[in-house]
Amino acid sequence: MSTVYVGLLGQGTVGRAFRELLSERADAVEQATGRRPQVSGVLRRKRGDFDQILEASDVIVELIGGTDPALDYVTRALRAGRHVVTANKQLVAQHGDELIEAAREGKAQLRFEAAVAGAIPVIRVVQESLGTIEIEKVFGIVNGTTNFILTEMARTGASYESALGRAQELGYAEADPDDDVSGADAAAKMAILARLAFRVPVRLDQVDYEGIEEIRPDDLAYAKELGLSLKLLGVAERRGDGISVRVFPCFLFGGHPLAPVEGPFNAVMVEAPAITEITMSGPGAGGVETASAVLGDVVSVIGGGAPLPEARRRAKIAKDLDSAFYLHLEVEDRPGVLARIAKILGDNQVSVRSVVQRGMGKDARLVMVMHEGPESRFKAALGRIAKLKVVRSPPRSIRVIEEEFT
Amino acid sequence: MSTVYVGLLGQGTVGRAFRELLSERADAVEQATGRRPQVSGVLRRKRGDFDQILEASDVIVELIGGTDPALDYVTRALRAGRHVVTANKQLVAQHGDELIEAAREGKAQLRFEAAVAGAIPVIRVVQESLGTIEIEKVFGIVNGTTNFILTEMARTGASYESALGRAQELGYAEADPDDDVSGADAAAKMAILARLAFRVPVRLDQVDYEGIEEIRPDDLAYAKELGLSLKLLGVAERRGDGISVRVFPCFLFGGHPLAPVEGPFNAVMVEAPAITEITMSGPGAGGVETASAVLGDVVSVIGGGAPLPEARRRAKIAKDLDSAFYLHLEVEDRPGVLARIAKILGDNQVSVRSVVQRGMGKDARLVMVMHEGPESRFKAALGRIAKLKVVRSPPRSIRVIEEEFT
Repeated sequence: MSTVYVGLLGQGTVGRAFRELLSERADAVEQATGRRPQVSGVLRRKRGDFDQILEASDVIVELIGGTDPALDYVTRALRAGRHVVTANKQLVAQHGDELIEAAREGKAQLRFEAAVAGAIPVIRVVQESLGTIEIEKVFGIVNGTTNFILTEMARTGASYESALGRAQELGYAEADPDDDVSGADAAAKMAILARLAFRVPVRLDQVDYEGIEEIRPDDLAYAKELGLSLKLLGVAERRGDGISVRVFPCFLFGGHPLAPVEGPFNAVMVEAPAITEITMSGPGAGGVETASAVLGDVVSVIGGGAPLPEARRRAKIAKDLDSAFYLHLEVEDRPGVLARIAKILGDNQVSVRSVVQRGMGKDARLVMVMHEGPESRFKAALGRIAKLKVVRSPPRSIRVIEEEFT
Repeated sequence: MSTVYVGLLGQGTVGRAFRELLSERADAVEQATGRRPQVSGVLRRKRGDFDQILEASDVIVELIGGTDPALDYVTRALRAGRHVVTANKQLVAQHGDELIEAAREGKAQLRFEAAVAGAIPVIRVVQESLGTIEIEKVFGIVNGTTNFILTEMARTGASYESALGRAQELGYAEADPDDDVSGADAAAKMAILARLAFRVPVRLDQVDYEGIEEIRPDDLAYAKELGLSLKLLGVAERRGDGISVRVFPCFLFGGHPLAPVEGPFNAVMVEAPAITEITMSGPGAGGVETASAVLGDVVSVIGGGAPLPEARRRAKIAKDLDSAFYLHLEVEDRPGVLARIAKILGDNQVSVRSVVQRGMGKDARLVMVMHEGPESRFKAALGRIAKLKVVRSPPRSIRVIEEEFT
């Protein structure tokens, strides 16, 4: 068993979350790659020496942010043959060509999944799964701060300023929110996605962007009436023999796959003739989500080739899970029927969430939805209910997923 | 420039689509991997010799389906050190351990993205992006045939039999639909996903499954009333110190991310503490979608390490795209105002889709939605409208995405 040394640049929220995740998942990394990860050094703002860390590392994880000194460190690491994983969207968007050149020179790998859309692995999907098909369009909601603000404005009728304040309170927006609300952050991400999707260099100044600062509660109120929802969209698409990369606030009709994406969530759609369309959604960049994207990249640069699914342990199959059920009964239409059925359910500790009685006489039916509980108890009750003379045909039951999402 | 020889087993719908895609995208494959793909041979039902093809190939693509003779071919190829890409869910679900063992012996790569969820790269995401985090639950709609039938029943009130007939007419269901409608197909896919997510061997006989044959229009009618939608779900999850892998028809509440997935589409959700949840959706297995998933795998086994985004060409940025706009105007409340604004829009060939007049006196407003057209024309009209004395404050405009999805 060999060790792989990981040098960490930057120790903010994501840096700390990554160190924790790396030590927590060290066994899994070792199982997947055959090598056990160990942190060789951490470069903090005022502590640590880059050259020393570089010397001692196989992989450099850059989580400083910004381009100075990140650009210098990352290009030097790549030229020295160290694989680099970065979460730095400005670095990749502004200096993509230099990074690629440095990686080529040093025969090193460069990965940057965490730079776009937090935990959603859109970079890997665009670059690898769809790496050789002809992508027509990549678009979506790539900034969680603005999506939270727009959702809040639509939901409560709040002004832009007050929704921004709420986002800042909850940690979804920074004290200086300009990079997010102006669309600049989304523009950097779209430049990266456009480069990967269309395999051309896209400069940041080629991306037109507009933000959400001018949106008024009025606009959202009218939109609601018209069945529209407002999103800050990033759109990269082929147009004629060129491409277009833009960021702008935009109304979507209710049936659009991005319309239900709310709060700090991100979502990206990819369109291509060979795949029709794929939609991916998930939480935007939080500390632990970003750290998990970084870890996925670290494992990939260590592992190189395709992983084989490891399966040394035995599977232990759990039985008698909790489920909620819908129950449909054709019953005789006379007093006491519901009471008898309810008693059987109660005897088996099955709790009823709702009952609707339908039809009359020969058409009488009970439609019930239960609360979650062990399946065995519901099945036991069902067995007894099925034998009742007042139940005119075999009962029908279907599971119900109760949890509701944001 | 070197050649990579691809041996193709099977020449059905997917096989033909794959050959076409491979030749169409040969340049892109070469750019991504440095090697140009060439088909070394095709094994048809009654033509071609497996040993000869094996000898002549670097990569074997297995699209025969079923386990006999696919298992024999694939294990021999892997042991002989040939990378294998397969779309065969039964093979992987039933013989996963043997395949992994053979790949290990031959130091060959094995990939099977196309075996689950068509064009949605769920295998790669679970195995690589999320390969070392602790996944709690993988679940979703992994059979397009049944989702089409359930959608059709809910939409039209049709019986199961008639919706199945419609699915067969449209090519979404086979003449013998049993494998799909019984849940067996989904069970095989869930066994594969569970193996990858939990890194334990999962046998097909450990997956409990129920199908949709017993679903009645009644159930769907009541569900609609209750705000529920019915899906055939595959669910693989940790429960206590074991796991549970099941397939069953199930009601979902309206707010659930899988509720809006309709027709032949598939969708998979992954839940883990480190990522909260990710949702991926797209078309189920069609010929070209499956072929594109196979191509992604072929490129990965050829390429090995992480691809570098190639960017030799210049980007050409398209300008003056077509857009539809929402326009909000605070106007003076007197006759002729709308006519003057409409004339300016008309002069600039901007076509109006809807107009709503709101408020009176000092609160009078026009809220308009335009049809799609060149942005330059709308902006020109907007410039003239802004100068009208009857417009009391700067106009506000926001783009509208018109396309509606299924």
